[in-house]
Amino acid sequence: MNTFGRIFRISIFGESHGQMIGVVIDGCPHGIPLKVEDFQADLERRKSGAIGTTPRKEDDIPEIVSGWFNGFTTGAPLTIIFHNKDTRSTDYIDIKNHPRPGHADFVARQKFGGFNDYRGGGHFSGRLTLVLVAAGVIAKKIIPSISINALLIEAGGSTDIINAVKEAKDKGDSIGGIVECRAGYISVGYGEPFFDSVESVISHLAFSIPAIKGIEFGSGFSSAKMFGSQHNDPIIDETGKTSTYNAGGITGGLTNGNELVFRVAVKPTSSISKTQQTYNFTSGKIDELKVEGRHDTCIALRVPVVLESITAIALADFVLLSKKTKG
Amino acid sequence: MNTFGRIFRISIFGESHGQMIGVVIDGCPHGIPLKVEDFQADLERRKSGAIGTTPRKEDDIPEIVSGWFNGFTTGAPLTIIFHNKDTRSTDYIDIKNHPRPGHADFVARQKFGGFNDYRGGGHFSGRLTLVLVAAGVIAKKIIPSISINALLIEAGGSTDIINAVKEAKDKGDSIGGIVECRAGYISVGYGEPFFDSVESVISHLAFSIPAIKGIEFGSGFSSAKMFGSQHNDPIIDETGKTSTYNAGGITGGLTNGNELVFRVAVKPTSSISKTQQTYNFTSGKIDELKVEGRHDTCIALRVPVVLESITAIALADFVLLSKKTKG
Amino acid sequence: MNTFGRIFRISIFGESHGQMIGVVIDGCPHGIPLKVEDFQADLERRKSGAIGTTPRKEDDIPEIVSGWFNGFTTGAPLTIIFHNKDTRSTDYIDIKNHPRPGHADFVARQKFGGFNDYRGGGHFSGRLTLVLVAAGVIAKKIIPSISINALLIEAGGSTDIINAVKEAKDKGDSIGGIVECRAGYISVGYGEPFFDSVESVISHLAFSIPAIKGIEFGSGFSSAKMFGSQHNDPIIDETGKTSTYNAGGITGGLTNGNELVFRVAVKPTSSISKTQQTYNFTSGKIDELKVEGRHDTCIALRVPVVLESITAIALADFVLLSKKTKG
Amino acid sequence: MNTFGRIFRISIFGESHGQMIGVVIDGCPHGIPLKVEDFQADLERRKSGAIGTTPRKEDDIPEIVSGWFNGFTTGAPLTIIFHNKDTRSTDYIDIKNHPRPGHADFVARQKFGGFNDYRGGGHFSGRLTLVLVAAGVIAKKIIPSISINALLIEAGGSTDIINAVKEAKDKGDSIGGIVECRAGYISVGYGEPFFDSVESVISHLAFSIPAIKGIEFGSGFSSAKMFGSQHNDPIIDETGKTSTYNAGGITGGLTNGNELVFRVAVKPTSSISKTQQTYNFTSGKIDELKVEGRHDTCIALRVPVVLESITAIALADFVLLSKKTKG
Repeated sequence: MNTFGRIFRISIFGESHGQMIGVVIDGCPHGIPLKVEDFQADLERRKSGAIGTTPRKEDDIPEIVSGWFNGFTTGAPLTIIFHNKDTRSTDYIDIKNHPRPGHADFVARQKFGGFNDYRGGGHFSGRLTLVLVAAGVIAKKIIPSISINALLIEAGGSTDIINAVKEAKDKGDSIGGIVECRAGYISVGYGEPFFDSVESVISHLAFSIPAIKGIEFGSGFSSAKMFGSQHNDPIIDETGKTSTYNAGGITGGLTNGNELVFRVAVKPTSSISKTQQTYNFTSGKIDELKVEGRHDTCIALRVPVVLESITAIALADFVLLSKKTKG
Repeated sequence: MNTFGRIFRISIFGESHGQMIGVVIDGCPHGIPLKVEDFQADLERRKSGAIGTTPRKEDDIPEIVSGWFNGFTTGAPLTIIFHNKDTRSTDYIDIKNHPRPGHADFVARQKFGGFNDYRGGGHFSGRLTLVLVAAGVIAKKIIPSISINALLIEAGGSTDIINAVKEAKDKGDSIGGIVECRAGYISVGYGEPFFDSVESVISHLAFSIPAIKGIEFGSGFSSAKMFGSQHNDPIIDETGKTSTYNAGGITGGLTNGNELVFRVAVKPTSSISKTQQTYNFTSGKIDELKVEGRHDTCIALRVPVVLESITAIALADFVLLSKKTKG
Repeated sequence: MNTFGRIFRISIFGESHGQMIGVVIDGCPHGIPLKVEDFQADLERRKSGAIGTTPRKEDDIPEIVSGWFNGFTTGAPLTIIFHNKDTRSTDYIDIKNHPRPGHADFVARQKFGGFNDYRGGGHFSGRLTLVLVAAGVIAKKIIPSISINALLIEAGGSTDIINAVKEAKDKGDSIGGIVECRAGYISVGYGEPFFDSVESVISHLAFSIPAIKGIEFGSGFSSAKMFGSQHNDPIIDETGKTSTYNAGGITGGLTNGNELVFRVAVKPTSSISKTQQTYNFTSGKIDELKVEGRHDTCIALRVPVVLESITAIALADFVLLSKKTKG
Repeated sequence: MNTFGRIFRISIFGESHGQMIGVVIDGCPHGIPLKVEDFQADLERRKSGAIGTTPRKEDDIPEIVSGWFNGFTTGAPLTIIFHNKDTRSTDYIDIKNHPRPGHADFVARQKFGGFNDYRGGGHFSGRLTLVLVAAGVIAKKIIPSISINALLIEAGGSTDIINAVKEAKDKGDSIGGIVECRAGYISVGYGEPFFDSVESVISHLAFSIPAIKGIEFGSGFSSAKMFGSQHNDPIIDETGKTSTYNAGGITGGLTNGNELVFRVAVKPTSSISKTQQTYNFTSGKIDELKVEGRHDTCIALRVPVVLESITAIALADFVLLSKKTKG
């Protein structure tokens, strides 16, 4: 499904090498001031160009084509599109029959009977995260008092991230990383039992970001090694403030008034310059594949702003929803 | 939201100390043979009684009260209820004003203006996983060729699980654990881009199980430390079989024809016999709390069957959905 | 689908001759005072017993089994069940192979491969409207300032309703009727473009009531014969009050501040004492059918309270939703 | 909500005088052959230009911007946009403070705090039906064996439609009409109890078409005047064929194997050349309004193709859904 959310509902469309990609936001409150420049900072952070990111350059200029009038959101569906410009489809022609390991090429071909647009990963491309960032810009405006910050805290197992990326790049290889996201100044009680715990909704969105393979909240996997007497965060005042933070700001699936903290594991970029082996549907044999095109050495470098965006999307929906639970 | 799923849709209701808990399954195919005994094995596995689990005894006899006729599902909503019997509400009276650390007591009180049924955690109770297991029994019947097995592989950081539990119990403390789930014989292509990746839907459901604080697929957090050339699983035949399994059976968010593997981190049980500190809303001060009632030393012991159940629920929905997305 | 609504979401289950029927209301605000007696007046109005209604007697005592604590709604799913008591299943055994004209017997058999519970219409029975009335009682509490009143204004083409019913009953036949519903004191702007116009949502619910075959808002079908200069309601003040009421209180799909008015057409009860012809699946021939059991002469007599209930359900959801769409 | 459907899900966006309007179809099966010319016939039928329709001319050339590759649908979201070209926004400037009777101007202003794009009705404009027709073209391809035909059978109370329109036009007035839609060759059993009866879903969509104020299935409002012995359609063979057609092809909310028949009441176009009275928010008084711009005398003339489209959309979704109910 290409729609997510209950009140602040985003629907995304487009392919890596198609005419455009876009997002329709239904349920966006009216009266939010918005201008094209508002997207710039976050789009810039997602961009390629830095060491370890793909040299593919996109202007990535958002066009707001509906739901926007005289500089404000109108309450009608807000649509933001990005025209695709710098696409070199010929780079990708072989992947239809010669699927790249770690990519969606093979599964997409099987699921869609070969009718999928395979160029650049098509609808499975990481390029689609661009519209998540655009939606995140709007979401952040709905929850202006909440601060959200994500950071790459480890790459290839090292905290010396720049060097780790450089070394992988020199080898024609790629590396993964860990991104941590923290959100502060969140009131108590967001999240909707039983199925829409804060962890449930954030993880749902996080795993729609290509390359994410794990997520943990607060002490996460370390919790499994702790005693309850260590893990339980003692409540110290009537606002719910705790003296330790193992819960990561979420108790019983609801925000508990402390800082929200979670980390995601980003796998190494699947596309690497090194020669790999894979099945060739044309020859019916395993043979060698050298992935052409321009790729990121460490896609995790571009994940922080996307993670902030999906966090903002999740929280904006929770905040809008919570207005109805007041009896 | 207390409903989950697109075709096989489950809606749950009830509280730990209320009259009953139940699940309504809408979209269950007709003509599935079903008898009350079919639930026995899985319900038994979830039950208390073993070392490290709560001595609270429930008969846990499922009553199928709609959608079932002459031994078969009818296609109308299938409702299964469990009457609550062995409840000792007096054990819990103090938690309203004296919230237990690590529990939903405080956040639920704030979210629901103090109107929540706080007895035994109310609607936030782990007891609700009982109806997930019941729904899982039905889901497994929809996907009979898929095998699903979950196992507690570590408790309190140790693989000698029995001893780890015993030691914690002796201290009046609790411990967490890691549960691994594997599902085999799954065809290629289940999962629905962009937002309903297999990881997204399974994690969404997994984090609705109380006490889960992390999830990882395949190599998960280890992926973040690997090179792409190590992590990419080479495809070796036309069925998508790979020679390594770092992806955990999911590529591009879709099942890739290999075994599905994921692990969850279960935090230590929040209720412990040891005295803890917490805020007292009545006195307006931090004071000591000794949690009464009967509790699990290691709730992770009871998670495997629940994890299998939510996996079955997720896969059943994907399988039913895929019948419609074919051209 | 057996669930309806976006915030105030009702899920219904059960069959005419099963153990129980029920409704789960998810998204009901917490803190609403509620007691079993609150249901009495509306359930009484729906009841059989009056001339022209079925002699089947049900106690129809609601049991609130979840989401209710100390006399108030808790914010967790609110579940209300009714045990079925006075069922005579033997009356219905022949309809499996000998479907009653005008009933769901044949279509249900085809759709559900013969696995449907055919007794008394099973899940298709008008008895299910009982839980709609129960849900309506809750919905009315959410919108206490809105008045909703429905009335049978015509039966069998006559406004002398009592006589029309009596005559039909004497003939062993049945008649239909027109029910009008009016709702006052509704603010401007409820309804959600583009697809969830007030007309869309009310008609969606209205057509789930068995026997409804038409609906019109305001001047409805008469509008089609009018000039625009007659039909347009002039706005006369800043609250949106109009001097005529052809729109039935809805403009552009949204409430316009005037009284909401709509009418539904109720077909004659399908079950009649008169002998009818229908196909017999056993003999493979058309033969005669005399419908046994106890039936209403004019089911329209029992529709007003159901129509009020679904109107309250629709409006409660719109009111709750509108709290979130404000900027 | 601007999304409709469970499997074949359409999301619409855009305003009458904005940059573009569009529809995103999620859940469209892959492998459907599609070319731009496929839209031509239906778009042509919706067009203005004929007597009684607005002289506003739009090229209305569909652009398929995602979900389409090498002439086939891909299974990814299918997006179709139409650029708005011939807009004269200055015609509409006064309506913000001087709302047109019968239009959404006033209610939209109130609902959206004055932030709505009021030009030409904005998101409430009948122009949005253009994307419904585009979606209908796709839907029809999913159900190729079902025939759907709608016809204007009455305008201004007359069956001499051409003359009725001409007379109204000469008076500077507008008229309404009745459109009948018939769909043949539909299998038994489409529709999803309890809430998604065929009548429920079709009426939901029909009332999203601006100007529709009533709908009836089969004998509809006439049913209310009939005896059950007249209204019940005798089943005459094992396919469900009936000898009369009062049910309009729907029994118990499900298709019954006979022709689907329903009629909608279309109100007269709200915009008329005649001077009208309405409230002026600027002066705080009632004064005269002469609606400028180009308008239809009889909008009902353009409704048949839209009605066919929403019928196709509803049926396509039911057909795709029904594939899962097979046990």
